[in-house]
Amino acid sequence: MKGILIIADGLGGRPTDMNGNTCLEAADTPYLDALATRGALGLLDPIGPGIRPGSDTAHLSLLGYDPYKVYTGRGVFECLGMGMDVQAGDICFRANFASVEPSQEGLRLLDRRAGRINEGQKELEQALQALAIPGIEIEFLASTQHRGALRIRGEGLSRFVSETDPHETGALLHESRPTQDEAGAEKTAEIINQITQQSYELLKDHPVNRKRIAEGELPANVMLLRGAANCPVLPSIESITGARGAVIAGGALYRGVAEACGMTYLPVAGATGGLDTNIRAKANAILEALKSYDYVFCHLKGTDNAGHDRNAQDKRAFIERMDRELFKILIEQVNWESTHLAFTGDHCTPIDFGDHTVDPVPVLFVGPSIPRDPSTTIGIRVAGQGGLGRFSGRVLPMLLGYCNWAPKFGS
Amino acid sequence: MKGILIIADGLGGRPTDMNGNTCLEAADTPYLDALATRGALGLLDPIGPGIRPGSDTAHLSLLGYDPYKVYTGRGVFECLGMGMDVQAGDICFRANFASVEPSQEGLRLLDRRAGRINEGQKELEQALQALAIPGIEIEFLASTQHRGALRIRGEGLSRFVSETDPHETGALLHESRPTQDEAGAEKTAEIINQITQQSYELLKDHPVNRKRIAEGELPANVMLLRGAANCPVLPSIESITGARGAVIAGGALYRGVAEACGMTYLPVAGATGGLDTNIRAKANAILEALKSYDYVFCHLKGTDNAGHDRNAQDKRAFIERMDRELFKILIEQVNWESTHLAFTGDHCTPIDFGDHTVDPVPVLFVGPSIPRDPSTTIGIRVAGQGGLGRFSGRVLPMLLGYCNWAPKFGS
Repeated sequence: MKGILIIADGLGGRPTDMNGNTCLEAADTPYLDALATRGALGLLDPIGPGIRPGSDTAHLSLLGYDPYKVYTGRGVFECLGMGMDVQAGDICFRANFASVEPSQEGLRLLDRRAGRINEGQKELEQALQALAIPGIEIEFLASTQHRGALRIRGEGLSRFVSETDPHETGALLHESRPTQDEAGAEKTAEIINQITQQSYELLKDHPVNRKRIAEGELPANVMLLRGAANCPVLPSIESITGARGAVIAGGALYRGVAEACGMTYLPVAGATGGLDTNIRAKANAILEALKSYDYVFCHLKGTDNAGHDRNAQDKRAFIERMDRELFKILIEQVNWESTHLAFTGDHCTPIDFGDHTVDPVPVLFVGPSIPRDPSTTIGIRVAGQGGLGRFSGRVLPMLLGYCNWAPKFGS
Repeated sequence: MKGILIIADGLGGRPTDMNGNTCLEAADTPYLDALATRGALGLLDPIGPGIRPGSDTAHLSLLGYDPYKVYTGRGVFECLGMGMDVQAGDICFRANFASVEPSQEGLRLLDRRAGRINEGQKELEQALQALAIPGIEIEFLASTQHRGALRIRGEGLSRFVSETDPHETGALLHESRPTQDEAGAEKTAEIINQITQQSYELLKDHPVNRKRIAEGELPANVMLLRGAANCPVLPSIESITGARGAVIAGGALYRGVAEACGMTYLPVAGATGGLDTNIRAKANAILEALKSYDYVFCHLKGTDNAGHDRNAQDKRAFIERMDRELFKILIEQVNWESTHLAFTGDHCTPIDFGDHTVDPVPVLFVGPSIPRDPSTTIGIRVAGQGGLGRFSGRVLPMLLGYCNWAPKFGS
């Protein structure tokens, strides 16, 4: 049997989203409703009740790992998701192009996202190839807009260093400092501070930034580093279950998490990790992948972006587009006699809060092993009445278990 | 108050069992329905969501222990369940009489169960008393059909050894090897290999086997060993709760688990651990035991056997027989003003898969402390709507808690 796991990032919401309804409840979703009618709903705590998840920790939990045991930080998934080679001992960071101005006390933050720069990042990436610390190998790659990933490699490095991002306009950039008394933390913090200073020197007069300033835009003149992490020890899902999986995701973080779990990344043209992603292309990629893999994990990010932007209309519209451009195709073209599907979110991103919250998320399972419940639509209130009850994480192990891929514990 | 825990092994099923219904849903069960009407249902993950249980690990979890902390392997419960004395340092195995033929490369498996031998096992057991390894005390006991248990006692033994059972007809018997670099593993593996070879020498020309061969049956000419385990450290249920319990079970494994938890074994004539077990005798034994013990755990194996045999009719028929020969008697004769009953399975054994799966199992609680829910029957779909929600393991601690036997954690 085959498995399809679809995670719409930040899918969950609150009654405050749209006049007493979550965006998912308010959305017109005839195809999801058809799947709910055939399947069963439940309430999912992505990590556990009352735990407010990050996207990285939530995904680890949904894929079957205990994030309290395996999570080391976000940076490693950003690097893996950019296709970088990450080895034991490397330290990885999520990087932002940001805008700063010099002051007597240090570099002062003007914008954490360099005016959401959308042009010239490759030239800036090129300039940053000149970053140089003796004995340390440095790799930096720019991804979408202001985003990037940095990996440092060398003897005796540590992930226990603080971030340089002050998260507040007008504040001075933070100095990285050791967060634990661990060998190498002092050295690594010093390296991070040097890289930050060097990035400013390399970028401040770069032609891309001169042009931005001339056009009244904020310069991308420094690199902010956060999410220090080393390579987690994750037994692959194939080594645990025997099932071979593929990942379809526009966002680097999600590709990175899935690759760290042993899934094969399948690039899809038009998968942007945003509201404008080509959902139909992802649907077709799922159908294609099912021919070669035992399961496919497909990630959609638009729901979360709209939630962070506190835009209920966009969130509802993205859900309605998923309904017509993904679930319609799956309903029509999947062999439902031998396929199970799970659909959920990795957390809530309610409109009124604009960030992740602790609330549970609806989860839908469909397939021949699933006992139908009375649900005829999907939403947080019907999910609370659903036949699957409430559980924490482990959606992929459950899905693979329904497909008879689970290893037996005991005899 | 008194507690009754009834576990029907492999009770859970899937909609694929019988035209959209599980065997439990399809069964005509007026007495269980009456109990469901008085009580409340829930969904049980025997160990946890998405974890596929063995019967041994599931029972530990249902009885209140964390199998990830206490489980060492199946063998010890098989030995305890045969009434053997097991001490710290002993290594225990589940043993099978099997059929092999010699070949140039080694012993080749013809049948893992020696044609499901059903006569002469005590004579073969007698012959195996000649097993001899210097410095090692060996005890072997045959139980039902091809089944048996082996215990070895001596200095410096280890449970970290691989099994000899290749689980595949036509394959060579496996050599036991160390599975961890632990002191004694090498020595123990060597002992296992010697015992295997000696068992072949002692059994191959045994009169029982000559007769079997003459009659066209497969000989029981070797002992297969698996499930190496040592004695787990389990605080008794009485030491935790003060409640004194008894176990009624035909299968050695279940008796073994319960005895390891401190329950007293009550033999019942006609309890076979199979589809043909005398259910009425077990029901009467429960009533009798309630006079002397605070709680009784009664195990029935037939549901699981039918599931492994992929026989939906047999599974349904066994459930219907439980209804009339067990639950009818309990309804009529138990003092329901001072008794709580929990009924569930230790896992699903769906007909289409013929082995344990991850799916949750219905659980029913009845008694004066239980808030009634609207259920008027029992099955996976009504359980998903049940008033007890979904939870993991610990059915006996919940049952004893409703009977006011639980220790307080904190003050």
